[in-house]
Amino acid sequence: MNHPTKKYDDRAKAINSLLCIGLDSAIGKLPAHLRASATPQFDFNRAIIEATNEMVAAYKFNSAFYEARGEQGMRELKLSMDYLRERHPDILTIDDAKRGDIGNTNMGYVTAIFDELGFDAVTLNPYMGQEVLQPFLIREDKCSMILVKTSNPGSGEFQDLKVPSGKLLWQEVAEHVRDEWNSRDNCMLVIGSTYPAEVKQLREIAPDMTFLVPGSGAQGGGIQALIKNGCDANSRGLIINSSRGIIFASSGEDFAEAAAREAKALRDEINSYR
Amino acid sequence: MNHPTKKYDDRAKAINSLLCIGLDSAIGKLPAHLRASATPQFDFNRAIIEATNEMVAAYKFNSAFYEARGEQGMRELKLSMDYLRERHPDILTIDDAKRGDIGNTNMGYVTAIFDELGFDAVTLNPYMGQEVLQPFLIREDKCSMILVKTSNPGSGEFQDLKVPSGKLLWQEVAEHVRDEWNSRDNCMLVIGSTYPAEVKQLREIAPDMTFLVPGSGAQGGGIQALIKNGCDANSRGLIINSSRGIIFASSGEDFAEAAAREAKALRDEINSYR
Repeated sequence: MNHPTKKYDDRAKAINSLLCIGLDSAIGKLPAHLRASATPQFDFNRAIIEATNEMVAAYKFNSAFYEARGEQGMRELKLSMDYLRERHPDILTIDDAKRGDIGNTNMGYVTAIFDELGFDAVTLNPYMGQEVLQPFLIREDKCSMILVKTSNPGSGEFQDLKVPSGKLLWQEVAEHVRDEWNSRDNCMLVIGSTYPAEVKQLREIAPDMTFLVPGSGAQGGGIQALIKNGCDANSRGLIINSSRGIIFASSGEDFAEAAAREAKALRDEINSYR
Repeated sequence: MNHPTKKYDDRAKAINSLLCIGLDSAIGKLPAHLRASATPQFDFNRAIIEATNEMVAAYKFNSAFYEARGEQGMRELKLSMDYLRERHPDILTIDDAKRGDIGNTNMGYVTAIFDELGFDAVTLNPYMGQEVLQPFLIREDKCSMILVKTSNPGSGEFQDLKVPSGKLLWQEVAEHVRDEWNSRDNCMLVIGSTYPAEVKQLREIAPDMTFLVPGSGAQGGGIQALIKNGCDANSRGLIINSSRGIIFASSGEDFAEAAAREAKALRDEINSYR
């Protein structure tokens, strides 16, 4: 059985890396020499994947940057995923789509993301509750990554409101996922590395779960505090994502080499604190 | 200026209808005789639009059912929108995509939904807060429809938690939108017709705002209570959506006529209580 939590942990152990690269391949930011290609996003992703895969335990695609190009973007997202699954089947693939709708509609997203595109995991918004997310949660072969405390500066507007249990809303969400939503052991939690104190609290709430942690590159979260506060008892349990800081390290013809250099530096920095 | 709130209200007044049809055109549910077409979702949508447009103040597309078909689905969504904008430019168009991500990523969704596809409005999830939704909110020519109390049975899991103001979370969200997010008068609120008591409370919270109300067809909300509780002082202020109950009223070659019959019946039922 292809269980994504185990897939990630096996990969992280095998290559000694918690690094996830975010392929937020916005067309306007691609190196100029690629833009004339018939498939610029795919060409870019393939070059980044080839230059970095040995250091990478997961790749995360941000759906928005492909949807922004309509059907051509969807084609290049599919090409990228087909390439990745064929060449590097051990690497966890995440669709950072932040979906969540009524159950009937979520069936459409399950088909699109898990079956059509073939992702191992998807990020989901908890606001509508567990009941609507069942079409995702019942997929034991796939992973549901639930937003808990998001990396943006304004995430506290609702997430930090105190609820009747005495917890903050984000903590309440995390406890619901831990105690109920995760009955098939196929959920992970999403928390921004921009909130190291909250990462520590989340590790106390969910000692054994894996966290997807965006915000470590361009958004500026500190690695040392993240590792100290967030790793599990095995010094793993984190999927540490960096997007723009790696993939757009150079806008020249050396973009893939520059990305590899940044990926190696971040992987090594992470490992130095584990 | 193409202000979507005014566009909707003008259309609702001109044709005396608050009806929105949801084009949740799931490929597996289309009439058998259409499935061999090169563009079955577009053919289906075009026929539904031609049969129903005179009774309709808004069309809502559920993005998931197009994404489920990858690039082909995105092509047919674009074809449908191009057709609608050219033939029926007075009808409000809504992308029910329930998006919400960090600001940088939301730029991708803004491009995809407002510019590439040309929608007037998009549904947004409030969990990450106002700050991340700025790329949507600053678009004065477009409408941001914020999820408040969703139509699903389990929507209370978090939405009904009491927060420090003494309000429930969904009420707190509605007040934030009313007082802060809506400074450009380009927001609407989304509430399920399955919660008529909450519709009444929301009208008290936001007397002058327009509400998108899903859940009136297959999800089974009562029309009378909805109109009584939800209309504004002008007997408008609601966008009442029905999807499956109208578009899949017949699975035979008469699907468009059957949809027109159901649309007329629902429009008339709505108007009988206004």
